[in-house]
Amino acid sequence: MFEPRDPDFEARVRASFAAQSAMKSLHIQLLSLQPGRVTMQLEKSGDLLQQQGFMHGGVLTAGLDSACGFAALTLSAPSVEVLSIEFKTSFFRPVTTDKVQVIGRVIKAGKRVSFCEAEAFSLEDDDQTLLAKMSSSVAMVGMPEGWMPENRS
Amino acid sequence: MFEPRDPDFEARVRASFAAQSAMKSLHIQLLSLQPGRVTMQLEKSGDLLQQQGFMHGGVLTAGLDSACGFAALTLSAPSVEVLSIEFKTSFFRPVTTDKVQVIGRVIKAGKRVSFCEAEAFSLEDDDQTLLAKMSSSVAMVGMPEGWMPENRS
Amino acid sequence: MFEPRDPDFEARVRASFAAQSAMKSLHIQLLSLQPGRVTMQLEKSGDLLQQQGFMHGGVLTAGLDSACGFAALTLSAPSVEVLSIEFKTSFFRPVTTDKVQVIGRVIKAGKRVSFCEAEAFSLEDDDQTLLAKMSSSVAMVGMPEGWMPENRS
Amino acid sequence: MFEPRDPDFEARVRASFAAQSAMKSLHIQLLSLQPGRVTMQLEKSGDLLQQQGFMHGGVLTAGLDSACGFAALTLSAPSVEVLSIEFKTSFFRPVTTDKVQVIGRVIKAGKRVSFCEAEAFSLEDDDQTLLAKMSSSVAMVGMPEGWMPENRS
Repeated sequence: MFEPRDPDFEARVRASFAAQSAMKSLHIQLLSLQPGRVTMQLEKSGDLLQQQGFMHGGVLTAGLDSACGFAALTLSAPSVEVLSIEFKTSFFRPVTTDKVQVIGRVIKAGKRVSFCEAEAFSLEDDDQTLLAKMSSSVAMVGMPEGWMPENRS
Repeated sequence: MFEPRDPDFEARVRASFAAQSAMKSLHIQLLSLQPGRVTMQLEKSGDLLQQQGFMHGGVLTAGLDSACGFAALTLSAPSVEVLSIEFKTSFFRPVTTDKVQVIGRVIKAGKRVSFCEAEAFSLEDDDQTLLAKMSSSVAMVGMPEGWMPENRS
Repeated sequence: MFEPRDPDFEARVRASFAAQSAMKSLHIQLLSLQPGRVTMQLEKSGDLLQQQGFMHGGVLTAGLDSACGFAALTLSAPSVEVLSIEFKTSFFRPVTTDKVQVIGRVIKAGKRVSFCEAEAFSLEDDDQTLLAKMSSSVAMVGMPEGWMPENRS
Repeated sequence: MFEPRDPDFEARVRASFAAQSAMKSLHIQLLSLQPGRVTMQLEKSGDLLQQQGFMHGGVLTAGLDSACGFAALTLSAPSVEVLSIEFKTSFFRPVTTDKVQVIGRVIKAGKRVSFCEAEAFSLEDDDQTLLAKMSSSVAMVGMPEGWMPENRS
């Protein structure tokens, strides 16, 4: 559906993911990448729970936000970074499963602003239930010359 | 401004905070509590950064969400839990300081839904700059009899 | 996909639509109804424009909000009314066409809160372009006995 | 608090308001303007009601959206137009009064994106009750040379 401006988008997005120490600490994995679409996975961790023993909403939101940002990044030029302008997260059900799949998609790609959505699904048996959904707008910010993704960490 | 329904709201909210393992892992502290208002603090941690070396937006959002939820909880009856229906976070500036103060407030208290806001400020020298703001709606959910906050962890 | 609680949902929703004087003034029509889904149409009107001569965003939002509310109402019990708790609207493109189709859908039906989405598409030639999207949460409010939809106008 | 880039901002914003035919049809007036802040007034009209006989939420939202956009416009350069990226509206209480005051404010002014808020208050006797609140992000879009606000209608 989307044509990437950067043929090497996958390596670039994976470098950006690797440069985020929060991803490992929050038990968020990057599974697969396509132009305008990413799939990630969250794993419940005993040190990241809310008061009822479920995965904390902040962790779920971090996964949804990352999926939106990385989806936008798959479509950007190599020298462009993404910054969330804002996002809204709606919570449909508590996360009672140990694993959550998060799928982020670009809804409207823009040069200055891209609009994205991400959905979180429980992964259990054959069942796939929608747990939460994010709607976000992402600023596409040109970086100064000489800037390299590797320099970011 | 607000009259709490539960005179022991502070102990109850602090118990709920203590029951959330995510708060410690995300370096979020609960500083002070008043009816309809809480003050929290976030500390930058090397294992919770985004790709530019700033505090991850998901961590900031977890702090804002907690501040909203605990603010709503200060005004609830003892047997009522709070669950975020949805929240929107707007990001004004990257978090370049080591400490962030988060203030959560109830805007409209309701029996079924409360509306809250939370603001994140950088803490550096004498400067207090608004970094991000959340607007949220929180469901007030009656818990079954015999339920005790201590049982939640 | 959804099973309506009220077999006469269509008559009830159409009565609620007819009781809203704003629908006619804003040139919003109700086209079709299914359980959890409604299709509406907006027509550009010379007295409802913004400063660039496009359909005003408030009118578009009224159409999206109505589509969400009526979609939720298709699934409610006869004595239940719907009230928007909040909605977020994202604007992807200006409305340059004369007609706009709006499709509202329930994403998660609940007894107290339902989550809905609505999308606005331009209608021109064979082209169907996504112009704007709403994400909303809707309170399902039980009405007192004896209340009748017909009494509302 | 804010320093306007355009000393003639008031005339420019009033011209933009006058160029929006929707404002008159929706019974929305522009009362006063300051840098980063506007005050507007909505009047209940029999042809703009929802099914319970209250002011339609879409009309209220149009007022809130306009207040946000005009507040952003007070701070822009003369050749810059504003376009809503997205907004979220939270509804605290139904509008049971005949007049509503809407105050829009810029929270964070930016060259590319400004963040705004608007609040709607009932106006009755001495009472001022918060009815609804919007949080929005607004794109600041440079217009081609030769463009004049007067050409927009």
